[in-house]
Amino acid sequence: MVGKYMEEKLKELKLELDKIGKMNSALELIYWDMQTKMPKKAIEQRSGIIEHISGEIFNMTTSDKIGEILEYFSGNIEELSDKDQAIIKYAKKNYEQTKRIPDKRYREFIVASAISEGAWEEAKEKKDFEIFKPYLKKMIDFQREFAEYYGYKEEKYDALLDRYEEGFTVNELDRVFSELKDGIFKILKKIEKSGKIVNKDFFIGNFSKEEQEKFSLFVLNKMGYDFEKGRLDESMHPFTIGFGNKDVRITTNYDNPDFTNALFSCIHEGGHGIYDQNIPDELQNTGLDTGLSMSIHESQSRFYENIIGRSEEFWEYFFPYAKYQFKEFENISFKEFYEGINKVSSSLIRTEADELTYSIHIIIRYEIEKELISGELDVDNVKEEWNKKYKEYLGVEPKDDSEGILQDVHWSDGSFGYFPSYALGNLYGAQMLNAMEKDYKELYNDLKVGELSYIKKWLNENVHKYGAIYSPKELIKRISGEELNPIYFLEYLNKKYSRIYKF
Amino acid sequence: MVGKYMEEKLKELKLELDKIGKMNSALELIYWDMQTKMPKKAIEQRSGIIEHISGEIFNMTTSDKIGEILEYFSGNIEELSDKDQAIIKYAKKNYEQTKRIPDKRYREFIVASAISEGAWEEAKEKKDFEIFKPYLKKMIDFQREFAEYYGYKEEKYDALLDRYEEGFTVNELDRVFSELKDGIFKILKKIEKSGKIVNKDFFIGNFSKEEQEKFSLFVLNKMGYDFEKGRLDESMHPFTIGFGNKDVRITTNYDNPDFTNALFSCIHEGGHGIYDQNIPDELQNTGLDTGLSMSIHESQSRFYENIIGRSEEFWEYFFPYAKYQFKEFENISFKEFYEGINKVSSSLIRTEADELTYSIHIIIRYEIEKELISGELDVDNVKEEWNKKYKEYLGVEPKDDSEGILQDVHWSDGSFGYFPSYALGNLYGAQMLNAMEKDYKELYNDLKVGELSYIKKWLNENVHKYGAIYSPKELIKRISGEELNPIYFLEYLNKKYSRIYKF
Repeated sequence: MVGKYMEEKLKELKLELDKIGKMNSALELIYWDMQTKMPKKAIEQRSGIIEHISGEIFNMTTSDKIGEILEYFSGNIEELSDKDQAIIKYAKKNYEQTKRIPDKRYREFIVASAISEGAWEEAKEKKDFEIFKPYLKKMIDFQREFAEYYGYKEEKYDALLDRYEEGFTVNELDRVFSELKDGIFKILKKIEKSGKIVNKDFFIGNFSKEEQEKFSLFVLNKMGYDFEKGRLDESMHPFTIGFGNKDVRITTNYDNPDFTNALFSCIHEGGHGIYDQNIPDELQNTGLDTGLSMSIHESQSRFYENIIGRSEEFWEYFFPYAKYQFKEFENISFKEFYEGINKVSSSLIRTEADELTYSIHIIIRYEIEKELISGELDVDNVKEEWNKKYKEYLGVEPKDDSEGILQDVHWSDGSFGYFPSYALGNLYGAQMLNAMEKDYKELYNDLKVGELSYIKKWLNENVHKYGAIYSPKELIKRISGEELNPIYFLEYLNKKYSRIYKF
Repeated sequence: MVGKYMEEKLKELKLELDKIGKMNSALELIYWDMQTKMPKKAIEQRSGIIEHISGEIFNMTTSDKIGEILEYFSGNIEELSDKDQAIIKYAKKNYEQTKRIPDKRYREFIVASAISEGAWEEAKEKKDFEIFKPYLKKMIDFQREFAEYYGYKEEKYDALLDRYEEGFTVNELDRVFSELKDGIFKILKKIEKSGKIVNKDFFIGNFSKEEQEKFSLFVLNKMGYDFEKGRLDESMHPFTIGFGNKDVRITTNYDNPDFTNALFSCIHEGGHGIYDQNIPDELQNTGLDTGLSMSIHESQSRFYENIIGRSEEFWEYFFPYAKYQFKEFENISFKEFYEGINKVSSSLIRTEADELTYSIHIIIRYEIEKELISGELDVDNVKEEWNKKYKEYLGVEPKDDSEGILQDVHWSDGSFGYFPSYALGNLYGAQMLNAMEKDYKELYNDLKVGELSYIKKWLNENVHKYGAIYSPKELIKRISGEELNPIYFLEYLNKKYSRIYKF
């Protein structure tokens, strides 16, 4: 039984977290509006509002009041439930990490990263890395400094990694990614050897916004994304954002002439959205309410986008509808369509990569940023390193910086340690699939008839309902009985591509 | 010259007001989203966010810090500019009025008014005033209590009036409204005597949402509403809301089968929007940035909706476009169209009333709420009083409570003293027109060719640019050289209707 005084303190903590959660929801909503609805001349005033509220949240998160409450919980809390322990642990980590960075340096970083993002945008537009280089240097210096505040055991980079993927280290990632890289290269070679050419030119056309939206809504509804707790809007880059589990919104962009672009981004964001919509009420505004880590979040979006959304069985159900709605597919066979959405081709742009080579893009970034943070690699040589790795791993060379080193926004605002989550998401997803297949024998038969509700239910029960109570490592062990193992993803890829490319 | 210390204090005050302004913008944006975009299951979580932020704003507005700064300004501030004096005056009034109400009572009122609004909705749906009666009683009790906190000289109601319309008293309003009522009744009698029947049945049809929106956007652009600083969305009830002068949004509702409904609500809200978009940058987040009073705001919206939007010259330009776009007007002549939008008929619903009888609806409400607050009239008799006045003034009788006493939301959340602003808006608008006509000889010729930019410029220069620096009384004197005088509105009405109804 939990003592009365401890219960009081817990209640106090939850009240504070609730206030922070509400302010965070407000901030996210204001951000959503900025990306989807805001008239263009409002940008400066809007930035002022965002800055003020962010500052308030910073103050609340590091307040003496929170500090005192957490101080009380510095001793033994094992008599508390898993959930309450996790709430305290999360609040403590958040408090300490935020506190550790001197206020002045944090503010300087916020300003510098905004300027850096602007420089990156300009550099990308002008396709000139030189413009961005000094800012990238500054961002790296900040992250190296912050890593010292956060603390680490072996590698400086571990401190940054831990912020996005609790408990992961360079040591472990090197092992996992090396296995993944070898496995993918093997499959790539087999595909090359097969000599088979898959066509996907028929995806380029004049697909109207309205028709694309209609089809995306149809698929999202079938997936179980709840439109009474969410909505689909347009923005430059697709994203998912939530203000509590009853209002989780997704966005897409219909401007790309490639039919698969908006559709698969909707399925991807729908996976994120279903996750956040199904985190229980009792975890709202506790800090545990937005999914447990970047990689577990990506495991959900990529599960829907690739494992489900690019499967043969999924399209057995949806293809007739696509054919009915879009005259562009009139003379396209099911086989052509299915192979088209799974065409493998080594390319330059991460966000447009196929399911197989995507992880290679991530590994390149991981290898580079790890060395940038350790100091082994200097910013002056980073562009050459980037181009060298793309040539070596994927056999492609960027013709300019915008399709090379400048393609991603992440480094411009100092998000080092973030990229690995994308590849880990693939691994977690496949390992979850393996567990799901054992529990759910009718999976593929159901998929063929558009029955997706049990998939959602399984993910609700095994992933979503825990929010961020467990660490990624604990969660995957609960689900699969073992640690993260790249073999599941590699086997999945091998099976899929051997059928398409006949090897 | 302003002393250095005073300048410091002023800077401190402005910093605090800026924070409050930013939080207010956040709150308004969250409210806008709730009314236009929010998925339906989010209502409870959203209310929690709104409650938290409202509470923060309350705390900021009544903080000791603000109190101390204002204390400093309790002496002589005449050496400051009009603008700075107004900022201090506004902050002081806001601080004192908010402070005067005991915290506990204010919170009780907020809860009670939310419940009361719910009861009103239910009562309206069930067309049963009895359901709402006990809540209305409570709201009146609160307002009577609050009036004591606010303070007044003669009538309790003056204290409430002053919150929406600074410096106005029952004494003065009685005089103004009595003149207005008599004048309107005289015109009404002449119209009846004329025997002329105007038809407007052709406005009812299947006007698609898209077509209505297209036409509304065309008109709004011509008016000078800036879509780079605003947007048009849909909501149950039309409204205008701003988060700074660079983001002022309007809404409408296309569901009504009457063509004039959405269009004139767009023109109306467009008038509010143009006001807020043109309040200068230097007044943003000072408290003086949202128009100077309810009635001056209404003067702008009604000026565009009625004086401009229902004028013969306006439609000389727009009618051919309406005819071109809507096949429903194929066989309608310009005369029929113009007379149709100006048809006078005594009716039951305020929001659907014509330009002439609209003010009578307001006067009925004013007379009733004045007596409810003074205690002369009891809630038990208010429905009979309502029906009696409608019969006496307009010759109509509600067949149920929903089209009678329950039609407006205002009383349900305790907004007593608000209604008079609508009628005052008509009077101010006509008095401004009189001044504008003197400055701007080409007004009607320009209108005929769709040239509306000088009208906007005149309003910018004479009304908008002052924000809330002057009181309504000061402003109208600056503009017209005299006090508010109902004669301008009555002359305007007389001239207009004598031409339509030939008297």
